[in-house]
Amino acid sequence: MQTTGDQQLLKRINRSVLLRLMQQHSGLSRARMAAQSGLTKSTVSVLVRELLDEQWLVEASPPVSGDGLGRPSTPLQLNAEGRVLIGMEVAVECLRIVCVSLTGEVLSEHEVPLHSADPQAVCTQATALLQPLCADLAARGITISGVGVCLPGAVHDSTGLVHFAPNLGWRNVDFLGMVRAALATAGMACGTLYVQNDADAAALGEYEFGAGAKDDPLIFINCDVGVGAGIVLNDRLFTGARGAAGEIGHTILQIDGPVCSCGRHGCAEAFIGARAIRGSADVARAGHYLGVLIQNLDALFNPKTVVIGGKICAEHPGLLAQAQATVAQYTRQSGMPMTEIRAARYGLQAPAVGAAALVLHRFLRPLSEGANHVFGH
Amino acid sequence: MQTTGDQQLLKRINRSVLLRLMQQHSGLSRARMAAQSGLTKSTVSVLVRELLDEQWLVEASPPVSGDGLGRPSTPLQLNAEGRVLIGMEVAVECLRIVCVSLTGEVLSEHEVPLHSADPQAVCTQATALLQPLCADLAARGITISGVGVCLPGAVHDSTGLVHFAPNLGWRNVDFLGMVRAALATAGMACGTLYVQNDADAAALGEYEFGAGAKDDPLIFINCDVGVGAGIVLNDRLFTGARGAAGEIGHTILQIDGPVCSCGRHGCAEAFIGARAIRGSADVARAGHYLGVLIQNLDALFNPKTVVIGGKICAEHPGLLAQAQATVAQYTRQSGMPMTEIRAARYGLQAPAVGAAALVLHRFLRPLSEGANHVFGH
Repeated sequence: MQTTGDQQLLKRINRSVLLRLMQQHSGLSRARMAAQSGLTKSTVSVLVRELLDEQWLVEASPPVSGDGLGRPSTPLQLNAEGRVLIGMEVAVECLRIVCVSLTGEVLSEHEVPLHSADPQAVCTQATALLQPLCADLAARGITISGVGVCLPGAVHDSTGLVHFAPNLGWRNVDFLGMVRAALATAGMACGTLYVQNDADAAALGEYEFGAGAKDDPLIFINCDVGVGAGIVLNDRLFTGARGAAGEIGHTILQIDGPVCSCGRHGCAEAFIGARAIRGSADVARAGHYLGVLIQNLDALFNPKTVVIGGKICAEHPGLLAQAQATVAQYTRQSGMPMTEIRAARYGLQAPAVGAAALVLHRFLRPLSEGANHVFGH
Repeated sequence: MQTTGDQQLLKRINRSVLLRLMQQHSGLSRARMAAQSGLTKSTVSVLVRELLDEQWLVEASPPVSGDGLGRPSTPLQLNAEGRVLIGMEVAVECLRIVCVSLTGEVLSEHEVPLHSADPQAVCTQATALLQPLCADLAARGITISGVGVCLPGAVHDSTGLVHFAPNLGWRNVDFLGMVRAALATAGMACGTLYVQNDADAAALGEYEFGAGAKDDPLIFINCDVGVGAGIVLNDRLFTGARGAAGEIGHTILQIDGPVCSCGRHGCAEAFIGARAIRGSADVARAGHYLGVLIQNLDALFNPKTVVIGGKICAEHPGLLAQAQATVAQYTRQSGMPMTEIRAARYGLQAPAVGAAALVLHRFLRPLSEGANHVFGH
């Protein structure tokens, strides 16, 4: 016997199944969605109607010629205009906000210097950035699915609490609660609100917005002063027992090597981090060590794709090329197929776009735990 | 509307929910199982009856005094005698078979030298070992849930095909199919049959048979001629994009270090593998490098527990102590809590016991993919 709660959950699951089908196979008809999802045609018909009404989906023009007999069916696709995701990055020196379509197109972007790293001041600045964007979207009849916020720190998966963000000087800050309260005070409806680590968010952006089959496992390496990674595997972010997984910058590549910011010797960050790179000779060396680091990740995670992003990568394109060359050399020695290594699709916007992707990612996985707080849904 | 298939699946899921509750909280009454699982009392009552009949569960003597009013309820627990799991390890030099209870107690064990590494010869020898054990169990009215086989090689998760087992000289061997055919010919009913990599199996043994909450993520490090790892995370084995995750022996700890069996320089195996250890000075060095390796795994996976097993670990207890000391030193520097590092609970039997655990693990996760072949269930 099903309760009303069961039915609601089942409906959310079935809706997410259809939306995930659309992500991978744009242009399917209702009949083909039913065939591929295993849902009945009448269930698909009802849910598609809802998803059209809520601007998740849109009907494309029907093909002029069908594939033979009968009237042509209407292809469906994700609505790339009527519903958006908002992503925000709290970086050490600036605040970035992007408005992204369901298909991963960046519709608008805005960056301002961070006035102060004080949590309440950041919250005020963030709300001031959100307000005109939300008002404009509302005026144009566009629905906001939610707002994702990312920052350089360790975030608790299920509560969104920021445990520790050393470069912002934050410890145990309920930033989500602050932003939620500020939005409520301002009377702004922005959908569901989430907070996540910046590299984790960037990994989700690369994962959610690629066309076709998803790259799983996917590792996003963020190269800046610190070197961290976001890891997606088994279709979920992987953050470890206490949310501290992916600290690749503090894996040791050279026992008794140069001293690292953490006080140990020979950590990856001591070779690859921004402080280690000054001239082009340093870039080549850093690229080589980045290649060694990737080969280690390869051995441990056997990833489908490794994505390289962050400020150093944007400033020194030679870094990626050298890393690829080093990994290619290891791969030749082992005789295994080479893992794809590529630059971040969204460049320096990767974390902000990833924060927007987080909203979509969570919506499409109604059964997953760790949904952060919910605001005004 | 539910189909018969849906109902069957729902029943399997609900049965697995109850069995997993029993794993963590032995002695619960039906009423408390209902409260903790969220299932109705009548559903629990029906399913417990089935699980008692099928020897998954057993009723313990009721407590003399209840916790207050009313008649005392009957505590339930996993049936540690009426149903067993069989695990088999195909090692390079021997064949091990163990009979294990649902609670992880080793009821019998048997080890014979491997006559030949030829797959068909191994299959014949394995069947000859299984036959008297199965006959004896049948004569005593004990149900066999299934047989898990593990071996030192890369195994395809969903088909059980052995891609490559270098130390056995196997490549693309359908060992599961061979054993299945041999058992069918011999008219033996041994339940479901699975094949898995030995370190992966060992990780599952440590994961499934601990009391209370499970250690997740858990990494099992197998130290032998080769150094490999089995990784359990998000309640599942993690094997990567092509089943090659956990190759910790070929992560580089020392760029330009000593040459490794793989042709590269400075791999963990070149410091920790059996070939690198001859005297006690070597053990101390290997233990230190093992500590560095664990610190790297710590940074990447943030595991709850790291378990050390394998022949070298059994022969040189100093290895584990030195590794713990090295990790403790790193941990002091970082100020983070130290990850638990311990010896394998089942010593050299860890892979065989883990192969038995694999049978239980798969049964308790009816929704997971990659169920290998099914035999005679």
